[in-house]
Amino acid sequence: MTAPRRDTYTPETLLSVAVAVFNERGYDGTSMEHLSKAAGISKSSIYHHVAGKEELLRRAVSRALDGLFAVLDEPGATHGPALARVEHVTRRMVEVLTAELPYVTLLLRVRGNTRTERWAMERRREFDQRVAELLKAAVADGDLRADVDTRLATRLVFGMVNSLVEWYRPQAGGGYDSTQVADAVVRLAFDGLRVPGARD
Amino acid sequence: MTAPRRDTYTPETLLSVAVAVFNERGYDGTSMEHLSKAAGISKSSIYHHVAGKEELLRRAVSRALDGLFAVLDEPGATHGPALARVEHVTRRMVEVLTAELPYVTLLLRVRGNTRTERWAMERRREFDQRVAELLKAAVADGDLRADVDTRLATRLVFGMVNSLVEWYRPQAGGGYDSTQVADAVVRLAFDGLRVPGARD
Repeated sequence: MTAPRRDTYTPETLLSVAVAVFNERGYDGTSMEHLSKAAGISKSSIYHHVAGKEELLRRAVSRALDGLFAVLDEPGATHGPALARVEHVTRRMVEVLTAELPYVTLLLRVRGNTRTERWAMERRREFDQRVAELLKAAVADGDLRADVDTRLATRLVFGMVNSLVEWYRPQAGGGYDSTQVADAVVRLAFDGLRVPGARD
Repeated sequence: MTAPRRDTYTPETLLSVAVAVFNERGYDGTSMEHLSKAAGISKSSIYHHVAGKEELLRRAVSRALDGLFAVLDEPGATHGPALARVEHVTRRMVEVLTAELPYVTLLLRVRGNTRTERWAMERRREFDQRVAELLKAAVADGDLRADVDTRLATRLVFGMVNSLVEWYRPQAGGGYDSTQVADAVVRLAFDGLRVPGARD
C-alpha cells in the first residue's frame, strides 16, 4: 500500500486505507496507531477527518450496505414476476460484491461488539430477509421449487455469493470478471449444474 | 465449557477443548496458557499428551481431512457415472461437515503461517482438486452443463457447502438436520431452484 501525499488526503482515501487495515488485522485488532502508520499521516490528522475508528467502520460498512440495498430499488427488483426479480437481485449482489470487494468483505466479517457492528449485522439480516421474501414469492408463484425450504435456500444462495470474498480477486491472472461470476452464480442457483434430462 | 475431571482426560477430550479455543481465539491468538485454562489442567499435563499447540492443530485438522478424504474412497464415489459420484461426494461433504463441525471450521479458517497450516491448506487444495476432476468428468459425459466453467462451479459449490460452518448449528431451535441440509445442497447445486419450465 502506498501512502498518498498528505495534501491530497480525502475522507475517501482514508476510508480505503482503513478498510484494508481492518480486513487484514480485524476491526478489534486495529488501533488508531495502526491506521496512522498505514495512512502515513498523524493520528491528529485522522481525527481531523473522523471522530475515531468506529466512524471509519460505520462509513465503510455503510458503503457496502448502501450498494446492496440500492439493488432492491432497481426496476429489475421491483417490477415483473418474483422469479425474474430474485434473479436480478442475485446477479446484482454478485456485481456489488465484486465492485466493492473490500467493503463487503468487512461487512461480512463484522461481529457484534460495538453499536456500529450490531447495527451492521442488523442491516445485513434485513437485507437477507428482503431476498428471502422474494424467493418466497417466487415459490408462491409456482416458479421456484417448494421442496427446498426457503430459509435454507436463502442461506445457501448467500453462502455461495458471500464465499466470493474468500477467493475472488479482480484482474488476478486467470481470473474471472464480474459478469462471468454473476452468470455462473445465477445459472447454478436457479438452473443447477445438471444438463436437463441427464441420467441421475 | 465444563472441564472434565483430571483423571478422565484423554487425548480426544483435550483435542475437543483445543479446537473450541482455536475456533474462538484463532490459532495464532491461542497460547498454551489459554489451553491450560480452558481444559482445567496444567500446562505440564498438556505436554504429557502432546508436544505443543501445533500438534493439537495437526490432529484437529487431520480429523477433518481424514473424514473428507474417506468420502472419496466410498463405493458411491468410485463406482458409476461421474455425475452420480459427484452428487454422492457433495452430499457426503455436507454430512462430514455437520458431523465434524468444529474440526472442519478450524480447517477452513487455517491460514498458512506454520508448517502444519501450510500442509492443511495443501491437503484442502488436493481435495478440492479431486472434486473438480469429478465435475470435469461429468461435463465430459455430457451430464453437467459445459456453459459453466468447471473451476468456477467447483468454487461455488464449495462456497455453498463451506458456508455451513458460519450458520449451521446442530439441534438449534428450528434448526435443520444434516440430511435436510445435504438434500437442499444437492438439489440446489445440480437441479437449481427453478421449477422446470417456469417462466424466465
